[in-house]
Amino acid sequence: MTPDLANEALASQIAFLQEIDRLKGVLRATPICDNSRPENSAEHSWHLAMYAMVLVDQAGPDVRIDRVIRMLLLHDIVEIDAGDVPIHLVHDSEAQAAKERVAAERIFGLLPAEQGAEFRALWEEFEAAQTPDAVFAKSIDRVQPLLLNLANGGGSWIDYHVTMEQIDARVGTKVNRGAPALWRHVRARVAGYFAS
Amino acid sequence: MTPDLANEALASQIAFLQEIDRLKGVLRATPICDNSRPENSAEHSWHLAMYAMVLVDQAGPDVRIDRVIRMLLLHDIVEIDAGDVPIHLVHDSEAQAAKERVAAERIFGLLPAEQGAEFRALWEEFEAAQTPDAVFAKSIDRVQPLLLNLANGGGSWIDYHVTMEQIDARVGTKVNRGAPALWRHVRARVAGYFAS
Ligand SMILES: [Ca+2]
Repeated sequence: MTPDLANEALASQIAFLQEIDRLKGVLRATPICDNSRPENSAEHSWHLAMYAMVLVDQAGPDVRIDRVIRMLLLHDIVEIDAGDVPIHLVHDSEAQAAKERVAAERIFGLLPAEQGAEFRALWEEFEAAQTPDAVFAKSIDRVQPLLLNLANGGGSWIDYHVTMEQIDARVGTKVNRGAPALWRHVRARVAGYFAS
Repeated sequence: MTPDLANEALASQIAFLQEIDRLKGVLRATPICDNSRPENSAEHSWHLAMYAMVLVDQAGPDVRIDRVIRMLLLHDIVEIDAGDVPIHLVHDSEAQAAKERVAAERIFGLLPAEQGAEFRALWEEFEAAQTPDAVFAKSIDRVQPLLLNLANGGGSWIDYHVTMEQIDARVGTKVNRGAPALWRHVRARVAGYFAS
């Protein structure tokens, strides 16, 4: 690469890194553990990456944890344009998916072409939830809000009038698919909350 | 591992993951890019991990980027107890280091012993800034606030009456050590700010 091209690539990368700062301003439905305010999608992504690092033993033998960490770090970046849709909110998932594709095009498009394509492929792999890495990453993404709500006193479960049956259907199936022992453990805690 | 021990290990890991949620409440000296509020250490850690993913080509050949990402994800966790000390604030760095060691003992001590020791070793490697991975991680940690301040209009440079000479001494040397081409590029932008 010539010095000019290298400098241009670096300028694109910095433009991307400045743009994704906006993820710190995307608010989610779940409050943080101390219930003081909603969680934002940037700190959520950090927390999920830490979940993957800590809970690596919950992953199946085919899971490459460093790819999972990368996937979790970038999985919500499209929300800068498309917003976060709470899992317990009834919404048009086709329309949301279309918005997210446009967002991916714009935001990953800020990067040098090869790197942008690599990041986009990792995001699409996460969304498709078919590979072992993506299935485990989805389990992590779904389980973390449960643990926040257990700590914050009910959080988005109260706001959205959620029942244990809805959690089993909307969350449990996905956590169980990638991390069954984790789901057994966390489900018992969540069931305790709903029983009390 | 017996089922009881496995369940106990998982309970410790969840306790750690709940505890580190508090990093979302540790505020830094630098405002986020839109200048609306200070950055917190959890979203900062996410942003640094993304910096490492994006700027991998700035790292020397001995750098293992996935270790750098892990290091950056956990490098600020001790701030939950010890707080963040702004780089441009005159402070007792011995006393701060002692507080951080006590914090590491308590917080990484929540994890199962082997995993806690592994995380602590990664944090100590970052702090010592001797290995190629740690040197590159430090470069990333130091360069990101510069780019936030360039976006937010001066941020902590204004609050702490910082000069270009101080940035060269306190920040530039460290960025340059792990990522010299990145430092040349960013230094030119920062010098432009201070010249105007
Ligand atoms: Ca720090």
